[in-house]
Amino acid sequence: MAPRPRISSSRIPLITLLTDFGTVDYFVGAMKGMILSINPNARIIDITHEIPPQDIEAAAFTLLAAYSSFPLGTIHIAVVDPEVGSARKAILVEAGDQFFVGPDNGVFSYVFQREPGFKAYELTNQTYFHSPVSATFQGRDIFAPVAAALAGGVTSKKLGREIVTLVRLEPLLPEKLKDGRLKGRIIHIDRYGNCITNIRPEDLTKRSIENGAYLSVNGTEIASFQRFFSEKSGSGGKPFCVWGSAGFLELAVMNRSAADILKVERGQPVTVIGKPAQF
Amino acid sequence: MAPRPRISSSRIPLITLLTDFGTVDYFVGAMKGMILSINPNARIIDITHEIPPQDIEAAAFTLLAAYSSFPLGTIHIAVVDPEVGSARKAILVEAGDQFFVGPDNGVFSYVFQREPGFKAYELTNQTYFHSPVSATFQGRDIFAPVAAALAGGVTSKKLGREIVTLVRLEPLLPEKLKDGRLKGRIIHIDRYGNCITNIRPEDLTKRSIENGAYLSVNGTEIASFQRFFSEKSGSGGKPFCVWGSAGFLELAVMNRSAADILKVERGQPVTVIGKPAQF
Amino acid sequence: MAPRPRISSSRIPLITLLTDFGTVDYFVGAMKGMILSINPNARIIDITHEIPPQDIEAAAFTLLAAYSSFPLGTIHIAVVDPEVGSARKAILVEAGDQFFVGPDNGVFSYVFQREPGFKAYELTNQTYFHSPVSATFQGRDIFAPVAAALAGGVTSKKLGREIVTLVRLEPLLPEKLKDGRLKGRIIHIDRYGNCITNIRPEDLTKRSIENGAYLSVNGTEIASFQRFFSEKSGSGGKPFCVWGSAGFLELAVMNRSAADILKVERGQPVTVIGKPAQF
Repeated sequence: MAPRPRISSSRIPLITLLTDFGTVDYFVGAMKGMILSINPNARIIDITHEIPPQDIEAAAFTLLAAYSSFPLGTIHIAVVDPEVGSARKAILVEAGDQFFVGPDNGVFSYVFQREPGFKAYELTNQTYFHSPVSATFQGRDIFAPVAAALAGGVTSKKLGREIVTLVRLEPLLPEKLKDGRLKGRIIHIDRYGNCITNIRPEDLTKRSIENGAYLSVNGTEIASFQRFFSEKSGSGGKPFCVWGSAGFLELAVMNRSAADILKVERGQPVTVIGKPAQF
Repeated sequence: MAPRPRISSSRIPLITLLTDFGTVDYFVGAMKGMILSINPNARIIDITHEIPPQDIEAAAFTLLAAYSSFPLGTIHIAVVDPEVGSARKAILVEAGDQFFVGPDNGVFSYVFQREPGFKAYELTNQTYFHSPVSATFQGRDIFAPVAAALAGGVTSKKLGREIVTLVRLEPLLPEKLKDGRLKGRIIHIDRYGNCITNIRPEDLTKRSIENGAYLSVNGTEIASFQRFFSEKSGSGGKPFCVWGSAGFLELAVMNRSAADILKVERGQPVTVIGKPAQF
Repeated sequence: MAPRPRISSSRIPLITLLTDFGTVDYFVGAMKGMILSINPNARIIDITHEIPPQDIEAAAFTLLAAYSSFPLGTIHIAVVDPEVGSARKAILVEAGDQFFVGPDNGVFSYVFQREPGFKAYELTNQTYFHSPVSATFQGRDIFAPVAAALAGGVTSKKLGREIVTLVRLEPLLPEKLKDGRLKGRIIHIDRYGNCITNIRPEDLTKRSIENGAYLSVNGTEIASFQRFFSEKSGSGGKPFCVWGSAGFLELAVMNRSAADILKVERGQPVTVIGKPAQF
C-alpha cells in the first residue's frame, strides 16, 4: 500500500475528537458547531466520546491505538480533563506529523513515547480562543477553536509558546528483570474483555515463543499463542495470547471476557517467562 | 474572536440531527441517507440521538444549549415526536439566522424565547417530501428531505405557509416573587448529575452574590459559588453553584451527582434568596 | 420527489459503516482514519456500531432497512465478523447500484433477495489491503482500504475475482401453507420493542384486511390494524399491527414493548389467518 499521504493545502483539514463527554448531552455538538463556525471546511471525525469519565489512561491508550491510522496532518483533540478551569496547561503537540490539542495531563504521553522529536506548545494566545472562555467547558471554548484555527493554516508558534516539560503517565515499555524475565502490565481492557498488555513483538519474538516462552498473569500461566480470536485450536474457555491490532500482545478467551476469567483489571502485572526478546 | 461567519452560497450546507432514536436501529442512518440522496453536498452533524424517548423538554434544552455554537445558516432537525403520524403540524422555523425543522410540539420553544422575531412555517408542500410518506417515520420522509431541500437553496416560503401560533413549553424565565425572592427551577440534569437551573447571570448578579445571596433547593441552602467543578475551596461532598457552559447557574458536587445528593429531578423549584438582580 | 441521483465522478464518494464494534474502543476511529488516509475525499456515515456482538441477522436486517435510503453508488461496509482471521471469504457485492463490502457470512443476504442480478467478488487483490493485514481487525486492514479504493474509482474486477456461491441466511419471504394461511416470522425487534415481521404489503393486502384477515402470534390474536403508533383508536396496552417504515408489518403496543407483552423473540412464527394476498 502507498504510504499515508501528507495533507497539503489542497487537502481536507481533518479534526478528530476523543472525549469522556458521552453522547447524551450537548457537549459534543457544541464542540463541532464551534469548529465549523470558525472553519466551515473542517472535517470532523469522532474517535470516541465514551472514555470512562476522567480516565486519562484509557484516553491515552485509545488515542495511541487510533492515531496512526489517520493521515499526516490530522489534528486530534482529546478532552478528558478533570481539572478543567484550574491552572493546568492547555497544550498543542506536534508529533509524528500530526497535531494533538488538549489539556496537559498525560493524555498524549503514550503518543510521545512512540514519536520522538515531538514539539509541545502551551496555548497562550487568547486571540484564538472563544470569548469569553467558560471555566467549565474549555473543549468548546479553547480546544475546538484552536484546532479550527490550526486546520485553517495558523502555525503552532502563533498559537502559543514552546515548552519542554509535560505531564506524563507511567511509561508504556515493559521492564527487564535481573533474572531475564520481562515484567509488563495490562494497559487496557476492551469492550469484549480482551486484555491488552504493553508487550510488543520486539519484546517477545517468534523464536522465543517457539522456544517455550509463556506468560504468567494473576497466578495463571498462558502458553497458548493463537493467530485470531475464533481459532479452533484453543480449547474452550481457556485464555490464550494473540497479537492484537493495536500492536501489543493481548490476552483473550474465545467468546468470553478474558478480564473476568483472569480476574484482572488495568494495571495488573504480566510476566513473560522463558526467553523473551531473544533474537 | 471574529463573529460567527454567515453561510453564503459558497459555504457548506450544514444540517444537524437531534433525536430520541438511539443509535442501535437503522433510523439515524436512513435519515442521513435520505438527506444525501437529495443533497449530496450536505454536511451532517449529530448533536445527540440519546434524548430519553419522547422527552420533548430534554430535547428543547439540549438544542438551546448547542445551537448558538453553530454557524449562521445551519439547519437543525429535531425529531422527538411522540405524536408522529397524527394531526400535529410539521414545521420549519427561522430564528437567530438559523433554521429549525421538526414537529410542532414545543421542541423549539426555548430557542424562540431567545430569538425574538422568528418566523414559523407549516410544512405543507408535499413536493419536497419523500413519497410515499410513512406514518411512522417522518424524520426520514418529511424532515430529512425538507432540510435537504433547504440546504440546497429552496426558500422557506416554497416549503410551506407562514403560521403564528406554535405549541410551547413552560417559559424558561424565572419568576420574581412579591417578597423580592426569585423562583426558578431545574430545567435539565446532565450525565454527571449537575443540575442546570433557569437562572441567568442577569438574574443573579456578581454584586448580589457578594452581598450574600444564596440558593434554596429542596430544603438545602447553597451559599457557595465556585468558578469550576474541581475547585479546591469547596469542601468534599457539599453542593455548590457554578455558572455553567449553557449560560445558566448549575448546582454541582465535586466528583458526584448533585441530583442524587440533593434528591431532585427536573422541574424542582429553586429559590434565590437575598438580593438577586441588584445592579 | 425526484428519483435518487446516481453518483457520478463529480459526486461525493460516500461510505457507510455498520459494525458490532460499539463506540467505546478505538476500532471505529481506526477504520475511518484508514479510509481517509487512502481517500481524503471520502464521506463517511455511520449506520450503527451497536449491532449486538456477532449478531449477523440483526446486521442483515439493519442494512436492509437502511440501504435504500442512500444514493446510488454508495459503498456500505458491514463488519459483524465472528470468524475474522479464519478462512471465511472477504467479499464485495454490487447490488441495486450500490456496493457492499464485508465478510461472506450472510450479512448481505437480505439485500441480495431484494436486488436480483447482483454480482459478487471475493477480495483477493492484496495490493489494495493495508499491509500487514492483522488477523484480528480486518475491518481496518481489508474492508476499509478496499472501500476507500472503490470510492476512488478502482473497479470491482480489479479488487477480486467474481464468485457465485455466497453464504446466506434463512430466506426473508413468508411461506404459504396448504390451508391458505401465511406463515411468517419476526425478523427484528427494535429498541422500542416493536416486532418487525417479514410480511410485506403484497402478502397482506388492504382488501384481505378489510375482509377480516388477522394475525396469530404466540397464542395471541391481533386483528387491529392502525396507521401510526399513537393512534387513539387502539385500547391501551393491546397489541396492534402497523405498516412500518422498513416496509414490513410490525407488531406494536402504544408506549410499551410489544415484544415483552407478546413474550416473543426474533424468529417467533407469525401466522396470517383469513384471506392474505387476495387481489
